[in-house]
This record gives sequence, C-alpha cells and structure tokens, in this order.
Amino acid sequence: MKLSWKRYDLQLKHTFRIARNARETVPVMILSLTHDGITAYGEASPNIRYGENIATLNAFFEKVDLTKFDSPFAVDEILRYVAEIEVGNNSAKCAVDLALHDWIGKKLNVPLWKMWGLSPANAPFSSFTIAIDTKEIVRQKVLEAEDFPILKIKVGLENDREMIETIREITGKPLYVDANEGWKTREKALESVRWLKDKNVVFIEQPMPAAQFEDTKWLRDRSEIPLIADESVHYLADVPKLADAFDGINIKLMKSAGLREAVRMIHAGRANNLKIMLGCMIETAVGISAAAQLSPLLDYCDLDGNVLISNDPFDGCRNIKGRLELTKKSGLGAEPFE
Amino acid sequence: MKLSWKRYDLQLKHTFRIARNARETVPVMILSLTHDGITAYGEASPNIRYGENIATLNAFFEKVDLTKFDSPFAVDEILRYVAEIEVGNNSAKCAVDLALHDWIGKKLNVPLWKMWGLSPANAPFSSFTIAIDTKEIVRQKVLEAEDFPILKIKVGLENDREMIETIREITGKPLYVDANEGWKTREKALESVRWLKDKNVVFIEQPMPAAQFEDTKWLRDRSEIPLIADESVHYLADVPKLADAFDGINIKLMKSAGLREAVRMIHAGRANNLKIMLGCMIETAVGISAAAQLSPLLDYCDLDGNVLISNDPFDGCRNIKGRLELTKKSGLGAEPFE
Repeated sequence: MKLSWKRYDLQLKHTFRIARNARETVPVMILSLTHDGITAYGEASPNIRYGENIATLNAFFEKVDLTKFDSPFAVDEILRYVAEIEVGNNSAKCAVDLALHDWIGKKLNVPLWKMWGLSPANAPFSSFTIAIDTKEIVRQKVLEAEDFPILKIKVGLENDREMIETIREITGKPLYVDANEGWKTREKALESVRWLKDKNVVFIEQPMPAAQFEDTKWLRDRSEIPLIADESVHYLADVPKLADAFDGINIKLMKSAGLREAVRMIHAGRANNLKIMLGCMIETAVGISAAAQLSPLLDYCDLDGNVLISNDPFDGCRNIKGRLELTKKSGLGAEPFE
Repeated sequence: MKLSWKRYDLQLKHTFRIARNARETVPVMILSLTHDGITAYGEASPNIRYGENIATLNAFFEKVDLTKFDSPFAVDEILRYVAEIEVGNNSAKCAVDLALHDWIGKKLNVPLWKMWGLSPANAPFSSFTIAIDTKEIVRQKVLEAEDFPILKIKVGLENDREMIETIREITGKPLYVDANEGWKTREKALESVRWLKDKNVVFIEQPMPAAQFEDTKWLRDRSEIPLIADESVHYLADVPKLADAFDGINIKLMKSAGLREAVRMIHAGRANNLKIMLGCMIETAVGISAAAQLSPLLDYCDLDGNVLISNDPFDGCRNIKGRLELTKKSGLGAEPFE
C-alpha cells in the first residue's frame, strides 16, 4: 500500500463567516492510496478549532506506514494503528479511513451505499448553507440558493435577527440554524431560541459552547425547538450522555476520523433516541461523496461543502437542488477531473 | 428473488437441559434465496420462549414476497418490509437477513468479515456449553470438551453447586455461567453469586428473569462478578437502559432478527460501555457461520451451536478447539453437504 498526498486550495464562492472566523480560501489535502493496481482517494479538511492545518497534516501523513499491512481490507486493524500514531489529527485519520473504504469499493466494483445495503431513496435533502454576512450579501445568497429546499443559517454574532429577518423577507423555507457555540450565556441563548420560535426553524445547532453542557441542558428544558450537538460530539463514547442535553447529533467525518466511527455513532445515536445529522466542512467532492454514501441513514443532511467552492478538483456525488445523487460509481464515487 | 425453505431436525449429541426445558432434537428451517444465478442461505432456529415453532416459521415465510424488490442489495428496504409483515417472528426475520447478506457476499465474491473490514485475529475464543445434567454426564461432557479453553455452564436449577463442583474436580478453566433467568429472588441470586466468587467465573449471564430489572440492578450493586444480559436484550432500543443493571449484553442473531440489528447493537453497546458477547441457539453451520463473521467485534463469544449436534447439514465455519475459523469462502461461508 502506497500513500501520497497533495494540497489543494479551495476557492470559496463567497467569504465564509461563522461565529468563530471568516475565510476566502480553504486549504485541504487529498490522500491517494495505491494497492493492487487500484488508486483510491481520501480527504482531510483540517479544522483550525482543533489545531489542525496543512503542516500538521503533512507531519501526520509522514508518520503513516502501511507497508506492514497486507491489504486495505483490514480496515479495523489499520485504523487502530493510525489512531494510535498520535492523539487528535482527526481530519488526517479521516483521509486514511476514506481511502481504505474507497479502495474496497473499487476492488469489489460496488459503490459503498450499495455494499452497505442502503437505498438512495431514503436519503433526506441536503441543506444549503448561508454564512454570516451583510444584509445585501445574505439576500444575494438566498436568491442564489433558490433551488435548494432547505437553508442552513449561520448565526451567533450580533446580527442574528437581521440575518433571519432578511431571509424571511424572501422565503419561508425551513431553516436549520447553526450558532456554532456563539451564544455565551444561557439567558442570551434562551432569548434567541424564543425569538426563533414560529419562524419555521427545524432545529438549532450547538447553541452554546461545548464546555457549557449544564447550561445547554437548562436551555433544552425550555426550548421548543430541538437542539442538535455539533462541537459537543466527536466520538462514539460522547453519544449516550449527549441525549441529556440534545435532541440530535451532527456527525462530521472530519471530526469522527472517518466513515467507520461515523457509522458506529449513527447506530449509537439511534439507540439513544437521538436524531442523526451528517454535516461537513468546506471539502472537495471526495469528502462530500464519502459522507453522501451514508445519507440514507440520516434524518438531516448538510452536505454542501463542495457546492460552496468554485474550483473542486474532483468529480463526485452531485448535489442537485439539495438531492445528493448516489451513482453506480464504485467506492466513494469521486475521481479527479484532470 | 425466489425463496424456498426446508425443515431439518438437528440431533443433539446429549440431551440439552437448561433452566427452562430439555431437548433431544431441535427443528430448524433453512431458507434459500435465489437471484441472478446465485443461491444464498439463511437459517431460523425457532425460540419456544417467544412462541416460535416450525408452524409459525412456515406461516411467516409464506407471507414474504420479495418480488417487489430489484435485488438483495436493498437490505435496509427489504428488512423494513419484512419487519412490518408481523411483530415477533425474529428467527424467521433472521433467516431473511442472513440470506440477503450471504447473497451480497457471494455476488461480490468476498466473505462478509472481509467486506466489513474485520480481522480474524481479533476474534475471542468461543466457549463450549455444558447443559444441566447429572454428575456423571457433566463429568463426561467436561472431558469431551477437553480441547476447548472456556466452558459455558448452564445453571438455574437446584443442582447448581453440584454442577460447578463436579467441573472444578476436573478443570480450573474459566467458566461463563448462564442462569437463563433461573434465580427467581434477589436473595437467592446474591447467594449464588457469592458462592461463585473466586471460582474463576468470568461472568454470569441473565441471573434473574428479564421482568425483574430492578432486582438485577440491586444484585449488580452487590456482585463482584460481571452480569451479562441475555433474555433482557433483543433490540437496539434495549441497549442504553441495560447499562444500568448489566455489564454486558449477549446478542443472538435469532433474537435480534439478524446481522444488521446485531451490528447496530454492538456499536450501541460499545458507546454505552457494555461488554459485547455473541451467542447462539442450537443451529446449523449457516447460523453459526453468520455469527462468526462478526466475531472480531466481540469480547466474548459463545458460538458452539453446531458443535453440539451430530447431523449438521451444512459445511461452514469450523470451531477448532474454540477458535472459529473465518475462511475465504464468500458470503456467510456455509454450503450444504449434499
């Protein structure tokens, strides 16, 4: 098994502002795994919240030595080894997980959704994300997103209400509201939740900082809108306790370190009566296609990471007006354009 | 997709007595699914505790109409339809689940363990079951089981101590103790648990009736030996609450209605910090080979159902001195002898 990796700088169509930061371009790393004449792909979109960047990805991939394993079929064994190289680095670990799964699908000549016995018809529509911006830009983005039936709105700064009001002047579409830990006191959070009531908000994602678990429980007892955990959930072991403060979980491959842990979390979430959402970072079609393979298992889907960029180097799962197209292409179903 | 089914009467090497009943032969049903030139197998070993028998299996299979589905790849969709035909009938539903998975593995020409990315080296040894019997027969069985490193002992009748003492005269091997709901009061259960202390007992399975959940919590607070749920656990939704009264769960394909729910339960069990055991009924190599495909995911394994019979009609996963041999045979890896 041979690994190589290459940096791509993804160009955002619009400046992407959330409660934490704002970006124009996003650097990601595409990992290639070649074995037995088959080249498979994985992706790492580093998360600055967890100290990841292109340098940490490079350093991590340098340490990954897969020569000791017979084949990519030994996913559990390989990922256990990769997990133990170093703590954290989940987006780098995700890239390895994705490449292994892509290779298996390509080797068996079957798309992963089919190998897993899933039915594309069961997948929910994906939301389209509107980041934090001025009234004018928000209005423009909402008009551009006309074809998408669900919008996801980033809030958590001072202009929350202005954003929502601007959107509601144009459309009554269902909204997923994502505060990205932006409401720092429970009173502020409750005030925002109450204001959002009766505005066709399906759920509110991560209203408060992950560290404020007790405050979130307090908020949930008073909120008529379901709360979904994002920054509060990373691994399988997080899932059961989250049911005390949230109504659902937003799993992301770059947080969970790949498809394998994501699948475990989906089942544990179901057992604990949590709604299941799959989200993404700004990613190429490699990461989005991987997540899309799991979409028939979801309640909510936010997989628009590559719709927001203008220079996706991969041709993969297409997001057609919010519907993620699961094709017959084997593995993850994403190949480089060049 | 065409289904057919056939009854087999499995001959037990020894009368099999547990706290509930005693049997010399066990009737099972083998389901055959043919599609696209491939014949795949599933098995139902009906559980009398849940009102299942050959007649109920026949009646259920008569109702299953898979002509509306394109291919066995649509596992989730097909199993959702099968689940809704009628409540219960889990061993019949299991047979369908197994046949679908066998077909997919055969179609892709890969054993399930490999398709799932598991490593056979991670599987624990299987225990060998000694049913309730006279001192003489127990002694004889323990000697016959000489090659097996772990014994599972059925208790819950009046001769518990005599059985354990007889075994301990011959061997100091680790024991899995299974009471099959046999201890009806918490005081009796605690007395038994205390007596078993320091006798190299790895865990006690289902000490009390499933209905006595609060008594089991009480017992667990006082037991130094871990408690494993069996009759208390059927489905994914049971798993989280069991962590309050048990240290682990014994999943059986005939209870969970197949591999698919079993996998979900394994992951939910891990999330809830429960040990994972996979058990079986008296079954042919079809059922045992199916369960063995999951064995790398387990802490404890009790898959000796076909070692206890003398006329297994299928050639499948072999139990070699407690080690379950996962081969390169595709699907479940079991084929009829004739």
